[in-house]
Amino acid sequence: MTDPFMLAAIAQAKKSLAEGGIPIGSVLVIDGKIVGRGHNQRVQKGSCVLHAEMDCLENAGRLTAKDYQNAVLYSTLSPCDMCSGTVLLYGIPKVVVGENRTFQGPEDYVKSRGVQLIVQDNIECVQLMQDFIAAKPELWNEDIGE
Amino acid sequence: MTDPFMLAAIAQAKKSLAEGGIPIGSVLVIDGKIVGRGHNQRVQKGSCVLHAEMDCLENAGRLTAKDYQNAVLYSTLSPCDMCSGTVLLYGIPKVVVGENRTFQGPEDYVKSRGVQLIVQDNIECVQLMQDFIAAKPELWNEDIGE
Repeated sequence: MTDPFMLAAIAQAKKSLAEGGIPIGSVLVIDGKIVGRGHNQRVQKGSCVLHAEMDCLENAGRLTAKDYQNAVLYSTLSPCDMCSGTVLLYGIPKVVVGENRTFQGPEDYVKSRGVQLIVQDNIECVQLMQDFIAAKPELWNEDIGE
Repeated sequence: MTDPFMLAAIAQAKKSLAEGGIPIGSVLVIDGKIVGRGHNQRVQKGSCVLHAEMDCLENAGRLTAKDYQNAVLYSTLSPCDMCSGTVLLYGIPKVVVGENRTFQGPEDYVKSRGVQLIVQDNIECVQLMQDFIAAKPELWNEDIGE
């Protein structure tokens, strides 16, 4: 059974897809409550910095260091260098990843910096990305700087 | 003599300071032309992701991988984990830093990933940050997740 926070991240990914965007979603959880939700905004806002995790953190607003240190970041896809760096900046101690088959960020480096990183290998997350990459490879490559 | 691109980044930092914000500025240069300018937007936009470098890249818009691979990112301050990760994501090959006395990001890691990182040790950049940190330490700590 998929955990409810990953389901909420997947809902964000599907929302983005329905908007014509890249199907990656994210939620930020503190003390068992979702305090931010977001999805990739490359298409929707013409943004190169609002990956799902960044949009989620932005939507969560200005938080204290203590908030971040008690947070868990969920993402449907393995966080890239940018999003991983943001986790490190704010000292978010735990990241739960839907899948890392279609893309893998610097997971070993993130773990070496003390972050707990859990990969759920969720098949729905994999399918969303596989279908999207097959349909719009240029858009996907743009999103990961390739 | 301060190079003109760093002067443009410093102008962004001063603009932010005049707006009541954090005095860090950045410009993105491709083929000798400034294609994006930005400054920290924590105060102005309530943003936790728009550090100067991120705001600059966002303002530059959606670029191609080739654009980024020919770009130089200027920042008045040593890029943090987030901004450094963004440099790595997009394969920006060169970063010119105003100063790293008041804050130092993961410079060794960035260099180990193949990025050329030059620190100019610009005294005006140092002074901007020293004065700001003395005046608003809480705001500064929030910006670096402390």
